[in-house]
Amino acid sequence: MHALIAQIKPVDSASGDRARAYLDTLTKPPGSLGMLEQLAIQLSEISGELASSITPPGVVVFAADHGVAAEGVSAFPQAVTAQMVANFAHGGAAINVFARQINAHLEVVDVGVVSDVEAPGVIVDKTRRASGNIATENAMYPEEAQAAIEAGIRAVERARKAGCRSVIIGEMGIANTTASSAMLAAFTGTAVEEVVGAGTGLNSQQQTHKVSVIERALAARDYEADKPLSVLAALGGLEIAAMAGAYLAAAAYRLPAVVDGFIATVAALTACRICPAVRGYLVFGHRSEEPGHGVALEALEAKPLLALGMRLGEGSGAALAFPLLQAANAMMAEMATFASAGIADKAP
Amino acid sequence: MHALIAQIKPVDSASGDRARAYLDTLTKPPGSLGMLEQLAIQLSEISGELASSITPPGVVVFAADHGVAAEGVSAFPQAVTAQMVANFAHGGAAINVFARQINAHLEVVDVGVVSDVEAPGVIVDKTRRASGNIATENAMYPEEAQAAIEAGIRAVERARKAGCRSVIIGEMGIANTTASSAMLAAFTGTAVEEVVGAGTGLNSQQQTHKVSVIERALAARDYEADKPLSVLAALGGLEIAAMAGAYLAAAAYRLPAVVDGFIATVAALTACRICPAVRGYLVFGHRSEEPGHGVALEALEAKPLLALGMRLGEGSGAALAFPLLQAANAMMAEMATFASAGIADKAP
Repeated sequence: MHALIAQIKPVDSASGDRARAYLDTLTKPPGSLGMLEQLAIQLSEISGELASSITPPGVVVFAADHGVAAEGVSAFPQAVTAQMVANFAHGGAAINVFARQINAHLEVVDVGVVSDVEAPGVIVDKTRRASGNIATENAMYPEEAQAAIEAGIRAVERARKAGCRSVIIGEMGIANTTASSAMLAAFTGTAVEEVVGAGTGLNSQQQTHKVSVIERALAARDYEADKPLSVLAALGGLEIAAMAGAYLAAAAYRLPAVVDGFIATVAALTACRICPAVRGYLVFGHRSEEPGHGVALEALEAKPLLALGMRLGEGSGAALAFPLLQAANAMMAEMATFASAGIADKAP
Repeated sequence: MHALIAQIKPVDSASGDRARAYLDTLTKPPGSLGMLEQLAIQLSEISGELASSITPPGVVVFAADHGVAAEGVSAFPQAVTAQMVANFAHGGAAINVFARQINAHLEVVDVGVVSDVEAPGVIVDKTRRASGNIATENAMYPEEAQAAIEAGIRAVERARKAGCRSVIIGEMGIANTTASSAMLAAFTGTAVEEVVGAGTGLNSQQQTHKVSVIERALAARDYEADKPLSVLAALGGLEIAAMAGAYLAAAAYRLPAVVDGFIATVAALTACRICPAVRGYLVFGHRSEEPGHGVALEALEAKPLLALGMRLGEGSGAALAFPLLQAANAMMAEMATFASAGIADKAP
């Protein structure tokens, strides 16, 4: 992990400046393609080129269980984590559908599901079986947090070897909004009730209970808010750690990483707290309905491309945003300039 | 035109209800895919099927000039309309790039450019060369408005014959935000300054001038706000009429039509004023930065899929939204159900 982090360099702002200047020569009023232009500039900062290759994307879905599910913080039983991993393996989940739409290379990695998932093609890279119940114990030891981060790094290294030129990181883990809310409250000092939402479908009474479980965890656990590994170990989850590792690896290998919703953004915040230069490699795909997501985005000064009122996870929102990255790149590669097309510029 | 309008039937709400019920059997928390679920329901209402074929999309870009350009209401000279038509023909504009990204069938139709555009593949279906200067005369005669609507209908009929299963309607016409703002003010009674923006890049002084030109046009022209053809003839434009015709044709042939930004939405509003059942066939792709767009969307009770701060037109925002329609369809066609995947439902 430390060797990889040492490799991470800030994105290339000079290349971004070249992209910004080139955009104003293309046959459109300056700035008229809005966020797509910002996206093209960022992709240039990442690649060092005006237009780079970002396909195929690698979609990696990390799955793990959470001891805190025992506190009744999710609308679904814990068994659903493993059942959904099997669904991913058989191609029937939303992320499978959306990954096929963008011709992605999809990998599912079990980094801590309680049971043994019997399903074809799932990579098993478990640090442990489920994190501890954060209401009563730490989620994991610091060494385990580091090991789960390394599982995430390995996944991006496999995607890269498979030819992927960008990554989309998703997750599955019943109760993982609880862990994410706890981490976000710890990182930012935000009141717990402002970072807790319905998750997969809690009513307001159940949400109140979820708030109290998280407040209990924050009061009882030992962590240092400015030490991301300590927050991750005390309050996090194995798939959240792996996702943070994946963002670190994306930055180290200069791959654009499309960030999904709430849980992904908390993992991205963790990675950026570990190494701030990671931020430049992150493209935010989707604004989730989960209220904590706004807080996490603000902490990263991020504005997502899409806002479709979704709250599914799995990487679904990031995958849906991917065609916009392709369009931004194609705009840079294929559009005519005013000069090449012989078009009059603005009236004086 | 009248025969085609008589063919338009409301969308099939029973099919939408079946889609809504089916969505809740898919392996995701109910409602968790947000606007994508609403989109899938609408596509079912249009097609009568749970999942329908919407590819390839047909992109039709209508181009025309506007006499009101003589009043200095655009940041670009009138010659740019014809120059951009040539750019479309040579594949160098933003809409060309985005159309290729979605494997669209693209057609450019000159419905009223002042000059003869010498470019390969452009369909010439001119009712007249430029509309009149609305500050001093009607944009066109009512018969010309109807003829331009019919040019739009013909374009969708060609797209349909070429195998297109959905349409994206774009436009090019220097000064066409002026015509659109005038029409929108006439249709809705909104104050002119609330529906006027920068267009392709006016400063605030130029925008004040644009407001005064439109106010002059509204005061001097004879039209009946509740007669869409009279508003179109007095204040509109040839490409706006053709776009309205295209939406009418899309509804008549039960093809989903993806609406682009401000000008497209004013044309869509015109079509819906002519025949309210058209509304059900319209998917709104993009929220433009042009301030009038919000007013036009509100008049249609429409919420666009994307909001990327764009203000280009050409159909660009609608083309960028198209992958979301494909994803919504694929979700319906390919996702597993809780029962088929053997996944536990919500805890009681």
